[in-house]
Amino acid sequence: MIKRFILTVLALLPLLAQANPGDMPREQQMAVKYIQALTDHDYKTLASFYNRDSIFKDRTASKSYTGRRNILEFFERAHRGVLEYHFNIEHMFNSGSLVVMIGNYHYRGPGSQFGKPGKIIELAIPGVTTIKVDMNNHRVKVHEDLMDYQTMADQLSTQ
Amino acid sequence: MIKRFILTVLALLPLLAQANPGDMPREQQMAVKYIQALTDHDYKTLASFYNRDSIFKDRTASKSYTGRRNILEFFERAHRGVLEYHFNIEHMFNSGSLVVMIGNYHYRGPGSQFGKPGKIIELAIPGVTTIKVDMNNHRVKVHEDLMDYQTMADQLSTQ
Repeated sequence: MIKRFILTVLALLPLLAQANPGDMPREQQMAVKYIQALTDHDYKTLASFYNRDSIFKDRTASKSYTGRRNILEFFERAHRGVLEYHFNIEHMFNSGSLVVMIGNYHYRGPGSQFGKPGKIIELAIPGVTTIKVDMNNHRVKVHEDLMDYQTMADQLSTQ
Repeated sequence: MIKRFILTVLALLPLLAQANPGDMPREQQMAVKYIQALTDHDYKTLASFYNRDSIFKDRTASKSYTGRRNILEFFERAHRGVLEYHFNIEHMFNSGSLVVMIGNYHYRGPGSQFGKPGKIIELAIPGVTTIKVDMNNHRVKVHEDLMDYQTMADQLSTQ
């Protein structure tokens, strides 16, 4: 009986060791909610994170957009017709208001935006996203992406 | 005999599959040599990568140094007495002159710099390093670090 109890506790340990989302620093919680709104194409929620000074930068594509309207316009255009989109965060940390997320952006959607018209393509692009948050105003000040477009190109070439 | 040959080829496959350093984009090769000079405390080689406009930024510590002299001074001070130091690069990519390195900084050295005087401490700090290179002049224009200091603090608390 005792052995069975110990085995049960041992089996539960991995679950108990998992951090409760409520234990995450507030900055990371906000960044996760923001990324969720982005990858869910929830533009209403997404809009609430921006103001006229918010900046979105794709440093690896040398692109930058400033202000809620320009950023939303870009994302709506870029994500048109997308079937699946999410960010698998492998590691996340923050230093005060700067949140760093390391992982893979998964994408399944029309190939037309990637020079593959008429095809459904699937990508897993390694990337680092940093988000500078303003906790008092619940705003994203700067969202910066570093994306491995070479890996993306390699994946596209076989589809 | 044939079986033995096939087994030998199979045994060699992992080696053959490894990318030749010469296959890396030139920007990544330069960034790797730069990081090697830094973690080997080879300040002579390191100095050759900087000019008066070079910038080193630790964004997670809100620190920034400009120019060869200031950057070298900082690293020499920070790395004094260190026994082991290297950067395990888990993933690397570049977009033109911007090189992104994701991995862990390993450190073994005196604890005095971390509030643990008289102890030898060991750390593996997850980090993202981006290096903006100037290939024509063989210079590092901007070196930026994003370090997971929370993980570092957790590791220190048990030593």
